[in-house]
Amino acid sequence: MSQSITVGIVGAAGYSGEVLVERLAAHPRVRLELVTSRQHAGKPVAEVLPRLRGRLTGLRFAAAGPEEVAAAGLDLVFLALPHGAAATYARPLVAAGVRTIDLSADFRLSDPARYEAFYGSAHPAPELLAEARFVLPELTPPDWRGATLIAAPGCYPTSILVPLGPLYAAGLLPPRGVVINSYSGVSGAGKKAEELYLYCERSGSLRPYGIPRHRHLSEIEEQLSALAGAEVVVQFSPHLAPVPRGIMTTIVAPAPDGADAGPVREAWERAYGGRPFVGLLPQGVFPDSRHVVGTNRVDLAVTHDPRTGNLVINATLDNLLKGASGQAIQIMNLWHGFEETEGLLP
Amino acid sequence: MSQSITVGIVGAAGYSGEVLVERLAAHPRVRLELVTSRQHAGKPVAEVLPRLRGRLTGLRFAAAGPEEVAAAGLDLVFLALPHGAAATYARPLVAAGVRTIDLSADFRLSDPARYEAFYGSAHPAPELLAEARFVLPELTPPDWRGATLIAAPGCYPTSILVPLGPLYAAGLLPPRGVVINSYSGVSGAGKKAEELYLYCERSGSLRPYGIPRHRHLSEIEEQLSALAGAEVVVQFSPHLAPVPRGIMTTIVAPAPDGADAGPVREAWERAYGGRPFVGLLPQGVFPDSRHVVGTNRVDLAVTHDPRTGNLVINATLDNLLKGASGQAIQIMNLWHGFEETEGLLP
Amino acid sequence: MSQSITVGIVGAAGYSGEVLVERLAAHPRVRLELVTSRQHAGKPVAEVLPRLRGRLTGLRFAAAGPEEVAAAGLDLVFLALPHGAAATYARPLVAAGVRTIDLSADFRLSDPARYEAFYGSAHPAPELLAEARFVLPELTPPDWRGATLIAAPGCYPTSILVPLGPLYAAGLLPPRGVVINSYSGVSGAGKKAEELYLYCERSGSLRPYGIPRHRHLSEIEEQLSALAGAEVVVQFSPHLAPVPRGIMTTIVAPAPDGADAGPVREAWERAYGGRPFVGLLPQGVFPDSRHVVGTNRVDLAVTHDPRTGNLVINATLDNLLKGASGQAIQIMNLWHGFEETEGLLP
Amino acid sequence: MSQSITVGIVGAAGYSGEVLVERLAAHPRVRLELVTSRQHAGKPVAEVLPRLRGRLTGLRFAAAGPEEVAAAGLDLVFLALPHGAAATYARPLVAAGVRTIDLSADFRLSDPARYEAFYGSAHPAPELLAEARFVLPELTPPDWRGATLIAAPGCYPTSILVPLGPLYAAGLLPPRGVVINSYSGVSGAGKKAEELYLYCERSGSLRPYGIPRHRHLSEIEEQLSALAGAEVVVQFSPHLAPVPRGIMTTIVAPAPDGADAGPVREAWERAYGGRPFVGLLPQGVFPDSRHVVGTNRVDLAVTHDPRTGNLVINATLDNLLKGASGQAIQIMNLWHGFEETEGLLP
Repeated sequence: MSQSITVGIVGAAGYSGEVLVERLAAHPRVRLELVTSRQHAGKPVAEVLPRLRGRLTGLRFAAAGPEEVAAAGLDLVFLALPHGAAATYARPLVAAGVRTIDLSADFRLSDPARYEAFYGSAHPAPELLAEARFVLPELTPPDWRGATLIAAPGCYPTSILVPLGPLYAAGLLPPRGVVINSYSGVSGAGKKAEELYLYCERSGSLRPYGIPRHRHLSEIEEQLSALAGAEVVVQFSPHLAPVPRGIMTTIVAPAPDGADAGPVREAWERAYGGRPFVGLLPQGVFPDSRHVVGTNRVDLAVTHDPRTGNLVINATLDNLLKGASGQAIQIMNLWHGFEETEGLLP
Repeated sequence: MSQSITVGIVGAAGYSGEVLVERLAAHPRVRLELVTSRQHAGKPVAEVLPRLRGRLTGLRFAAAGPEEVAAAGLDLVFLALPHGAAATYARPLVAAGVRTIDLSADFRLSDPARYEAFYGSAHPAPELLAEARFVLPELTPPDWRGATLIAAPGCYPTSILVPLGPLYAAGLLPPRGVVINSYSGVSGAGKKAEELYLYCERSGSLRPYGIPRHRHLSEIEEQLSALAGAEVVVQFSPHLAPVPRGIMTTIVAPAPDGADAGPVREAWERAYGGRPFVGLLPQGVFPDSRHVVGTNRVDLAVTHDPRTGNLVINATLDNLLKGASGQAIQIMNLWHGFEETEGLLP
Repeated sequence: MSQSITVGIVGAAGYSGEVLVERLAAHPRVRLELVTSRQHAGKPVAEVLPRLRGRLTGLRFAAAGPEEVAAAGLDLVFLALPHGAAATYARPLVAAGVRTIDLSADFRLSDPARYEAFYGSAHPAPELLAEARFVLPELTPPDWRGATLIAAPGCYPTSILVPLGPLYAAGLLPPRGVVINSYSGVSGAGKKAEELYLYCERSGSLRPYGIPRHRHLSEIEEQLSALAGAEVVVQFSPHLAPVPRGIMTTIVAPAPDGADAGPVREAWERAYGGRPFVGLLPQGVFPDSRHVVGTNRVDLAVTHDPRTGNLVINATLDNLLKGASGQAIQIMNLWHGFEETEGLLP
Repeated sequence: MSQSITVGIVGAAGYSGEVLVERLAAHPRVRLELVTSRQHAGKPVAEVLPRLRGRLTGLRFAAAGPEEVAAAGLDLVFLALPHGAAATYARPLVAAGVRTIDLSADFRLSDPARYEAFYGSAHPAPELLAEARFVLPELTPPDWRGATLIAAPGCYPTSILVPLGPLYAAGLLPPRGVVINSYSGVSGAGKKAEELYLYCERSGSLRPYGIPRHRHLSEIEEQLSALAGAEVVVQFSPHLAPVPRGIMTTIVAPAPDGADAGPVREAWERAYGGRPFVGLLPQGVFPDSRHVVGTNRVDLAVTHDPRTGNLVINATLDNLLKGASGQAIQIMNLWHGFEETEGLLP
């Protein structure tokens, strides 16, 4: 199959935008025709994103607004914008029937009130929520392919939903009592020139933040509740780690009555056996974020503690790949019938 | 008071040994007369520990064995050795009545069977256990000053006992159900030339290990149980973080019935108000390991989560200072009636 | 062209071996049939190199010795071994007519006496030197394609020969008086479990070594002398930097009489214009190792200093890609008529 | 001698300001009475600089302007401000006869025209230049103690003047032909919230900047020329390294006719023998920035290269201590007759 599609990226100068550009520039089924950045409009892409030097020659950042992007005749558009801004592009794109994959939080929640509660402002496009689909490819049933607007999951949520999704779906975990602890690389905060994100502030630093009610909780609990068929409430404590990329999530949950880690492994095997982007680690092997950074994989391990009766689950991923841009490309691949791993190896 | 004491360090070439040497070399009440290292015997200290260049001129590493050290006429000896090895020095030192502060695990547990269960070999000197005192200066009642052999706490345990000790002592926490997650700098593993600790392996890496039954659990649970008057069992998940020094511990525990974080703050204030090495952070401020590395302080914060009814506690310290050598010097200061902070600022 | 070749990697468990495996596993023209490691013989590749988890299933490390590898019927073999060991494999491979790309120093020098002077032992296979070709694809004339044994250049040499090669060839630089300063990521030392390479030793450290006569000088000066047609002697000062990957080389050289940076830029443009793996930066833009790590590119910049009459040249590359495995794959691609960038983007 | 002095710090919230506060808070001869920060006026010092938590209780940042600081009755004031701003404080302080140590560039150059050429704006207080003394304690003759206004040297200049000063003074080096290459930790740029200094931009990055004419050249060449009695012009190439603190400077210079490294070592020994803050390394030992970060020391090594006839000199220091605040405190100690190392160990 030699068919290829035309693609645009809105907001391509941030960290997840850069990864999208780099990966799509090498994707054999994609012609990258439009990349936008208000700040860098007019500049060659490889001048702003020097990793691309020598590639994409001729492509410059455009200042294209929502209507222009929607009218550009593209087959698919990625939105790599802050929440709020994404919706303003999604509206005309959906109206024009252009397939859109949004990496922001704008269409991850089904309830605009919940959005407002967690994001602090009214939902920017509630009328689109009914059409949007939250797609975590390994978990979401395949009927999403008919939608026009896809919400790609957040980085923390992916590291939590991949391990916990099949367990809640199988009734292995209680709706309350799960404790989640995550450490994230600094790129998760985006390319913000704030003191907190300076090299000298983050180097050598381990630091919690967003406790007890990080925004991603809204998305985590909505998805888990849907899978569990009951309202799930979790304790989620995120931290900043001195790495550019990578998330390590450690989850403590009560083991099902009388069980060890067996039922968890079986549920994972059923859900993910043969899937290219989920690594199921054997007993006694722990994941390491260094082994997944630069890949689109989530690595999972589970340990039963007979002293406490708990399960300890570790999950790791690259927040810019499986936690953002890689997952968005994976969604594109599946949507268009490409090989799932195309453009995502190594 | 111009009095000073003569001090020796056994095993001075490792990371905690180096910090002991550096701090004691500048301590106004201490004359450092003996530093030993089998590997570096005969070499000037500042050749092996180049941070000390230009200081301690004339002092060389000695190969002195246990009897020699005990007979050296020192007022106090620090043992910075692996567990097992420490006991062989402690025996003649105690027999000679030399005050000894052991930084290893050899005398932290009261029960030799528990030692064997967690450390995998028979206790090397069970006859000394009755004489040894586990001393965490902010928690241990002051009657330890009459002992000869002091066990300084481990790094993870200090980051856990300081926040939880007063809470268990006050009956604020249940014996089961507390979940502890820690990230440690790589120096916590000592100066071991193993692949796991290579720069390229640890750089950029977040990695769990020792789950579900790290050796330090033995010490954590023994101390908490003693304070609680009941057998405490916790879930403890340690991780390696890509920093040379620093521990961040995040603890989730059920809040006492109907309470928010108030009782925790009050218990901490009672236990630690005015103590120089415990920082109690105001509501909404999170600790950062970068703010304590290079200091002997533990910084504590607590957050109540009304959604879950849990408390989230964060504690951070420098594993080589408050988690090892700094704490040992603090013990020395208190033992000899020196200013508690002497040699430990900044 | 759908043709593909069968490939083996000898010594695949080190850092450059791992990169070879990862890249070749995704290379559309390559079937990776044999990977060897004495230490890990019998283990699945993805168990030892967890970045490969879920890929290359079924492939295990073999313990195959030189004769076995040579008899394996492979089209091409990469040798990722220490110097000395590589030659023992090269001998039967060359005898069997198997195309061999050696990443070690064994065949980079034409004179065995020079090898002995710099590497401290007799050359292990002087009889093969006449057949071996040193190939830096952007500099070496294309007639090397007829050889059987190719020596891939070292990491420092590549960062120096790419910028200086065309300048010496064009007579723009004098044989003496060039000063070269390089900083390298720690993976350049390989996966050696030595104290010097521990995380806590290298983290936060800037450190010279190998001054004034690093082994790579032999290769640098031999190549530059050949291009200059005169004996070139340079001052080369390497350093370790606290990064896993990346080299930054800064070169100071006298500008040709009366000239500014123009002739250098022209010589580079002539040599490298249109080549995919050399980035020529515009005036006033400096290279950054972060922009090339993960790519197979060398980025070059030159600045003229009117105060001193010198040129300052900066060159950067990823020591494991353009400085080792990426360059070896590039050689393979050119050798077999594949697209030069195949398997090397992004 | 139990005498102590009252001290103020203007601009205490930056990186060098923070180190001043931390060190002076523990200095037995100093009462820190005034710390200013426009941005943080009114806040407790330990709230803004959390490393100080639990210390300096009661001390808050003041917004005090130049006249107020001058009228505060302090014995000594440190100015840790950007160039230009420092002069506005220096003027009334000098008028009031208050001893002032300026860490900025404002009084390091004797010629206002040179200041304008390198700093891009007219000198802010040329009338004070005659009264100001540039003091690098190990190099500057002791008659500076009678001055009122002291310019503390820059970080790069200290790493260059300490090794080269005695050599130029002894006539061992030529006025032209010396090549200097430096790598600096990111804190050298100050606490600026700019994209270039973000964690994700600097992590893993080696990057030149300021070539060929960094501002510090003005100071380096003025000092060296004064010592040489001739106009010295050097090639200086600074780089950013991914460390928070530390500078490594590598200098290549022609060896004096027929000489090896002997005369350099002798000159250093004469100049620095017995000085506490200069480490002279034995032949074959290279300095490491990790060994001096956190100390006020410069470590020096020299290697003769018989192949080229050059000397290679390595010098390393902590840019915030010997390169800024530590050196300023050292100047204060000498000025007031305190022990030179007071407050600077470890």
